[in-house]
Amino acid sequence: MPPRTKLLFTAVVLGISSAAVADEGMWTFQNFPRAAVKEKYGVDIGDAWLKRIQRAITRHETGCTGSFVSPQGLVLTNHHCVADCLADLSSSSRNLTRDGFIASTRAEELQCSGEILSVLIDTEEVTDKVKAATAGLPDAQANEARKRELSRLESECAEASKKNRATGPLACEAVTLYQGGQYYLYKYKRYQDVRLVFAPHAAIAAFGGDPDNFNFPRWALDFSLLRAYENGKPASTPNYLRWRVEGPRSGEPVFVAGHPGTTNRLLTTAQLKMLRNTFIPAYLVRNSELRGRVIQWGKTGDEPMRIAQENLLLMENSLKVYRGFQRALLNDALMEQKMTQEQALRARAKSDPAFRDLGDPWAQIERAQERYAQIFDRYGYLELGYGFNSALFSHARRLVRGAAERAKPNSERLREYADSNLQRIQTALFNDAPVYPEYEQVTLSFSLDKMRENLGPDDPLVRKLLAADSPDTLAKKLVTGTQLGDAKVRRALWDGGQAAVNASTDPMIVLAREIDADARAVRKIYEDEVQAPTTVAQEQIAKVRFAALGTNTYPDATFTLRVSYGAVESWEERGAEVPNFTRLARLYERTTGQPPFALPQIWLDARSKLDPNTPFNYVTSNDIIGGNSGSPVIDNEGRIVGLAFDGNIHAIAGSYWYDPKLNRMIAVHPQIMMTALRDVYGATAIAQEILGRE
Amino acid sequence: MPPRTKLLFTAVVLGISSAAVADEGMWTFQNFPRAAVKEKYGVDIGDAWLKRIQRAITRHETGCTGSFVSPQGLVLTNHHCVADCLADLSSSSRNLTRDGFIASTRAEELQCSGEILSVLIDTEEVTDKVKAATAGLPDAQANEARKRELSRLESECAEASKKNRATGPLACEAVTLYQGGQYYLYKYKRYQDVRLVFAPHAAIAAFGGDPDNFNFPRWALDFSLLRAYENGKPASTPNYLRWRVEGPRSGEPVFVAGHPGTTNRLLTTAQLKMLRNTFIPAYLVRNSELRGRVIQWGKTGDEPMRIAQENLLLMENSLKVYRGFQRALLNDALMEQKMTQEQALRARAKSDPAFRDLGDPWAQIERAQERYAQIFDRYGYLELGYGFNSALFSHARRLVRGAAERAKPNSERLREYADSNLQRIQTALFNDAPVYPEYEQVTLSFSLDKMRENLGPDDPLVRKLLAADSPDTLAKKLVTGTQLGDAKVRRALWDGGQAAVNASTDPMIVLAREIDADARAVRKIYEDEVQAPTTVAQEQIAKVRFAALGTNTYPDATFTLRVSYGAVESWEERGAEVPNFTRLARLYERTTGQPPFALPQIWLDARSKLDPNTPFNYVTSNDIIGGNSGSPVIDNEGRIVGLAFDGNIHAIAGSYWYDPKLNRMIAVHPQIMMTALRDVYGATAIAQEILGRE
Repeated sequence: MPPRTKLLFTAVVLGISSAAVADEGMWTFQNFPRAAVKEKYGVDIGDAWLKRIQRAITRHETGCTGSFVSPQGLVLTNHHCVADCLADLSSSSRNLTRDGFIASTRAEELQCSGEILSVLIDTEEVTDKVKAATAGLPDAQANEARKRELSRLESECAEASKKNRATGPLACEAVTLYQGGQYYLYKYKRYQDVRLVFAPHAAIAAFGGDPDNFNFPRWALDFSLLRAYENGKPASTPNYLRWRVEGPRSGEPVFVAGHPGTTNRLLTTAQLKMLRNTFIPAYLVRNSELRGRVIQWGKTGDEPMRIAQENLLLMENSLKVYRGFQRALLNDALMEQKMTQEQALRARAKSDPAFRDLGDPWAQIERAQERYAQIFDRYGYLELGYGFNSALFSHARRLVRGAAERAKPNSERLREYADSNLQRIQTALFNDAPVYPEYEQVTLSFSLDKMRENLGPDDPLVRKLLAADSPDTLAKKLVTGTQLGDAKVRRALWDGGQAAVNASTDPMIVLAREIDADARAVRKIYEDEVQAPTTVAQEQIAKVRFAALGTNTYPDATFTLRVSYGAVESWEERGAEVPNFTRLARLYERTTGQPPFALPQIWLDARSKLDPNTPFNYVTSNDIIGGNSGSPVIDNEGRIVGLAFDGNIHAIAGSYWYDPKLNRMIAVHPQIMMTALRDVYGATAIAQEILGRE
Repeated sequence: MPPRTKLLFTAVVLGISSAAVADEGMWTFQNFPRAAVKEKYGVDIGDAWLKRIQRAITRHETGCTGSFVSPQGLVLTNHHCVADCLADLSSSSRNLTRDGFIASTRAEELQCSGEILSVLIDTEEVTDKVKAATAGLPDAQANEARKRELSRLESECAEASKKNRATGPLACEAVTLYQGGQYYLYKYKRYQDVRLVFAPHAAIAAFGGDPDNFNFPRWALDFSLLRAYENGKPASTPNYLRWRVEGPRSGEPVFVAGHPGTTNRLLTTAQLKMLRNTFIPAYLVRNSELRGRVIQWGKTGDEPMRIAQENLLLMENSLKVYRGFQRALLNDALMEQKMTQEQALRARAKSDPAFRDLGDPWAQIERAQERYAQIFDRYGYLELGYGFNSALFSHARRLVRGAAERAKPNSERLREYADSNLQRIQTALFNDAPVYPEYEQVTLSFSLDKMRENLGPDDPLVRKLLAADSPDTLAKKLVTGTQLGDAKVRRALWDGGQAAVNASTDPMIVLAREIDADARAVRKIYEDEVQAPTTVAQEQIAKVRFAALGTNTYPDATFTLRVSYGAVESWEERGAEVPNFTRLARLYERTTGQPPFALPQIWLDARSKLDPNTPFNYVTSNDIIGGNSGSPVIDNEGRIVGLAFDGNIHAIAGSYWYDPKLNRMIAVHPQIMMTALRDVYGATAIAQEILGRE
């Protein structure tokens, strides 16, 4: 068989060659498929375009993306990306979530205390160093050595950046691409003073609420504006993006740059089955019940309603995502395609003498997943916090673990307490976001209840914790007894280190201390017996994949900078084409006066002076995933023509595959954003700043 | 290939020949596998044994089984089988669920207004009549004709029984066995005056609550006593069962007779996948959220707590069952076995000239299931009541439908309004069980919310119902506006028939009227396009199965009388043998003082005078399923040696297959029941009646 035919065959079987045709892929900037884009859309994307975009994109600690839209650090992102900030700045007397926010002057801009923005300045491949550090070691030791080496490389990189005049100090993060096929250092400039500039009312930002979420046609004004500050002044951001307010044409090629969080397209079928059979069903049952508890608790008063609503947004979104995951993994066609791809790769490995010593990494992953299923509940409830769903407990764990870990050398610590992550931990600990004791009791009691249900009432740790308590009475004791709701108390414990934590009699600290050995023990089993053999096997599979396909593919999403290409394009649902754009008129027709279909008064009042034909939301074929929220939609001249905020229901399956016929991204049109700023909210100065007429 | 070998092969591949070895099967009394039992256990089960047992077993309207344990109509069943009765008899000032109940004299026995007991007197095969009535008709018409014929046969049978002096009037119910391989009339004597005699505290009856449910070792005193009355006097029940209080020996063969509700062992893989991919995931997410809402609502006060607890028992039990279903159907080994069995049957059909004109019933079922998945949400929310989760709405629907259906000839009605079912409908409508408006609002608001979520906010019916309302405001209007909480109002509307229902302005009646056309329309699609082709195809597959295996197999459970055989036998869990019996001592050690591990004071007080070695619960290998709750465990001399109340977690998979290594039934030991009656509760007269020393 001639090589070309063989490659073609393999590639087709692997389902990847279609990428160039199918708008598939979240591509790294270092490996953007220019030729494919040129071929399909006749558009040249050059280095200058990529470089400018890279410097304009912000990564948000909240799991979102944004972009600079003025030279004074103004950042465009989604409304749902500032939900935490709005909640933290709200109280029973000031409800920014409900009422929105406009800073008429810079002085009125309010700090989002939990937010950090990161801009990717540079990347550096370190694959050889990581492989050298793990060479010849057994799996569990290699796993430890790899983590040590990554922490070491991060420290070294951060140190070096301090001497670099051109960039100034950078935060360095190790990134794993192609499931261990490549390791990189990503170097970020960080903005730690981030302020709220504008947010519309939640009722228009998330019009249709959970019923409309992941659906289209749609009318969601899901945008907001932040500003990055440096040294107390608006940051200078010359690499900002201009707006093309009239938006894109139907069929026009568009690009979405951002930080997609996680895809699982390269998982083996054993891993997919672990998700389908164990992880996802448990997630859905657990969080559906929590949703019910929070909704019902929210009905006990206005303030509970406000707090519940804020927390439900994310919870309901995640539930829809996991339902979509489940649907995808129960789809026989998907699973069969995955099996076919896997068999082709396995056959390739068997037939190539270069892989004679490979062993069977697929079988190794399968065994590791079986082990995972065995420890899944214990690992989840003790280590991942399913059993202690409480912001106060999370603080306690950060303090207890932080004290123990900081006493060790950087490379010996748990990865999340490595120097490169300490800033993130401290921001979480020291920010003065309010804690709601009554809500904490709801979620903590719930999670203790579920822990007993899943580990069983005769589990020794469960028996110890609930010896003379119900989940309710224990949650009440912990929440009313702890002082950790006070940021000053947390800071004192953090600064006091191991001695202060050991001496504390705060019940939440005591709890975190008491379960720590058990939690670390099951984490150790997970790392040694699940993660370690899986990582090694994935690296081996990556080698086979590179041999078969080269790097002419894209790696799974890892919350690092990517760009996807596509076009403004509709899709067919049950035999009918879904309209491409929505317009303002229909928003008013869908109003019921009751949440989530109630409009704010200011929008009802403005109706007569607005153009009913104003485009509102639209769909494109770009391949995106959670983390892309807030990503700018960009034309081939680098101008913003929209703001990504959601996918259609089929896009959720994008975690496992990209279906060009069904997978669609949903964006806010720039015209409705400008209309909102100028004609509804009277935020003239902000509109002028965006249009460059300040 | 000689026939015997071929049969053996087929039977092994079909996974059914193992029944004789594996204690598998819920056998009809007309087809009990005496030879297999004799071979395995050396025990002869004769006609007299079967006849006596048949007349001693009661079927309960609540979905349970019971048995007569005295000649004066005393009935032994589970505590959880009288949960509705206890709740209906409770109020904010008298909590029978919490405090238990003892009738010291007959006069103190309290009527369970929703309960009807049925005793199977006779059966009659009518397969030929049903087949004749449907012969040559297209599927949808055959489906209608079959229902008409079944209603007609039921009426005819009931009429005939009125003239039968030996039996007196009987209720006749058509029963489908072997998925349409056989049709029967089952003839029951009905007891409509059923009274509560004894119930222990819920805290000991369901000790361990939901965490322990479906688990073993176990300490649940899950028994209660009812009494059947006739003409205001205790019924005469000479076919009662005596107790063997010392209980069974380890390894002893035992029999369980009762009314297992539903198994799905004969479904095709297409049907199993519909359950796995669509039905079960939707059930779990919906009801997990409802569970959360009810739990949280229960925390708003003592009375809400009482009402919530009563409703949570069943809800949490069902959730565990569905989680077990899901686990079973995601088990590759099970699905592969089902596929292998199916392929063997299909091959058999293809190779046998007798089935030349069979077509492909498996493919027909697959197409029907695809159609089902398309209409699943609409059918569930409108017709099955997922969208109107409310006792008051159920009353409204019974009234609206009942008026319309009773105006038609019996054989033209919806099956549930046929004459044979009217008694059941009236009992549900006219009993004076309390309705709790606040609870009704919780569940109705929830279900309206889910209906909008699942049908979408733009569904015309959803838009009509929620045009100017949220689920909360609509639920409140309906529940506070309706008069249907009053049994007298319901009776007047029932008696008033179509005119009264048409004239009613009661908002719940108006709602039931308004959605009725839509609900009937989707039901019609379901019946014509899902049920009709499925039923015909199943009858065809049954023919192939009979040809391959004869009737030396058991039919799927259908809430009709069955007997299973097995032995008192442990199983292995994670490499260790689970102890066979539990004993009283450990109950006290497991007490935490907090629900669901708190003991009633009377049990704490009695501790010192009770023998800590008293056997409590035990496990057997009998093949049982929901509906067997309350079934007596019987020795080969026909004496009661236990009371079935649960299965272990593996027994849930029994819906789809019987795994002899893991599937276990859990029973209450007679000794702890007798101890409770005599030594804890001082119910001496009742104990004496059971022991025959009155």
